Amino acid sequence: MKCIINGQIQDSSQVSLPINDLAILRGYGIFDFFRLSSGIPLFIDDHLERFYQSAQIARLELIHSKDELKDLIYQLIEINHMPISGIRMVLTGGTGAGAYAIGKSNLIVTQEPIIFPSEEMFAQGVKLITHEYLRDIPHVKTINYMTGIWLQNQIKEAGAFDVLYHHQGLVHELTRSNIFIVNNTGELLTPANQVLHGITRKQLINGLKEEMEVVVTDVPIGVLNSAREVFITGTTKKVLPVNQIDNMHYSIGSVTKRIQEVFSDLEKAYLQNH
Amino acid sequence: MKCIINGQIQDSSQVSLPINDLAILRGYGIFDFFRLSSGIPLFIDDHLERFYQSAQIARLELIHSKDELKDLIYQLIEINHMPISGIRMVLTGGTGAGAYAIGKSNLIVTQEPIIFPSEEMFAQGVKLITHEYLRDIPHVKTINYMTGIWLQNQIKEAGAFDVLYHHQGLVHELTRSNIFIVNNTGELLTPANQVLHGITRKQLINGLKEEMEVVVTDVPIGVLNSAREVFITGTTKKVLPVNQIDNMHYSIGSVTKRIQEVFSDLEKAYLQNH
Repeated sequence: MKCIINGQIQDSSQVSLPINDLAILRGYGIFDFFRLSSGIPLFIDDHLERFYQSAQIARLELIHSKDELKDLIYQLIEINHMPISGIRMVLTGGTGAGAYAIGKSNLIVTQEPIIFPSEEMFAQGVKLITHEYLRDIPHVKTINYMTGIWLQNQIKEAGAFDVLYHHQGLVHELTRSNIFIVNNTGELLTPANQVLHGITRKQLINGLKEEMEVVVTDVPIGVLNSAREVFITGTTKKVLPVNQIDNMHYSIGSVTKRIQEVFSDLEKAYLQNH
Repeated sequence: MKCIINGQIQDSSQVSLPINDLAILRGYGIFDFFRLSSGIPLFIDDHLERFYQSAQIARLELIHSKDELKDLIYQLIEINHMPISGIRMVLTGGTGAGAYAIGKSNLIVTQEPIIFPSEEMFAQGVKLITHEYLRDIPHVKTINYMTGIWLQNQIKEAGAFDVLYHHQGLVHELTRSNIFIVNNTGELLTPANQVLHGITRKQLINGLKEEMEVVVTDVPIGVLNSAREVFITGTTKKVLPVNQIDNMHYSIGSVTKRIQEVFSDLEKAYLQNH
């Protein structure tokens, strides 16, 4: 498998980072991840846009323009021949002074196999547990997954799929997905603030415009008690129904099913046009 | 310069980590850091003890026993000849499944130059700013410094030395130091919970036992308004006075000066006995 390191296409097995990179010493870096569907990088411009925004906010320098990086990624896709896969772009803090200052970033782009939730999960939904936590710099896709990975045992013990973060009474996001909630009056809500603005989330908010309103707002955790439907969205999760959060149960209703169709249509339309 | 990687002593320039290590992909890892004074690793047993505890809590496996690692570190110290320096032990999440599961950890031990605060800072104190934040898994020395590094511009703009974290009305710790406060009745307080248990902090709490009581307790942020003295402690900060937090000013009083002496004596006593 080939990858890109600082603009050069290389064998993945030969790629490594110096141990004094700030990603390793201090967990400082950003990334983005998108998938190939039928060999086509889905919503690549959205992901590149977010990646460059994350870099800017985290004060990490990218030596390539968005178009240059896109060209390199298309070259990588052609070389690797992996029509169903994920592309991960990582930008590290680099090697700076005193093991604490930001240095010259390393950019690494890898292609990897992708694991989707099972057909059963898409049909019947998954269970979540909750945890009080707010990600560092939540609007940035940082590499900090300390809490999410640390909670994996707790998630497994609860027989859950993942963890839903809430903070100061508001629902935020999952470790790697956004949440949507149909409340007890039938409104479709998704948290507005202190969440990563997921690309699947963005595509759905736009794509649903003519059919139904997505209310992007602060969501008090109490809304979950009387919610009718809950689903999560993400690059590998697509539109994944939730049937349980802690001890609250949800059915997989007509809104979730319709939105699964809408997203499937958005993906098909993208593939036809690219 | 030599370093240790997974038990082997190697040239630092030849050491690197595979790009799919969980430290790089997800910022998942722990570390510890101690300094050499006159070539002697200060409080090394305390640091090793904490490093192994951090590993256990983070569910990372160490293949060496504490004594084996200590032997290796003494070999490294002898080879590198750097009597004033820092030793950094990093244990990474390793390479696991799906870029998210914990794998076989990489252990890297490096020796590096050390930067102390200036004589002026030790005499006149430093300025801090405050920020609402709680570290992930605060009792573990994780590699996650996303927020601290991200705030460096804000710290610089304020002309400050570092940032003091508080959360839900309680004072916790700085990015890389613990805080001690002499309150308005002369009691010496240090936060008890959701902080890293610093080794300098531990040495002082023990070392001061016969001379004065350190009250290890929850510290409401309001205590700072009427505090008489404030200082911070850490491996490179030793006992560093604070003269300002946001707009509150503090003098460098007799308690801080006495504790600087006490710590200096503790260090001297350690060096004489090791």
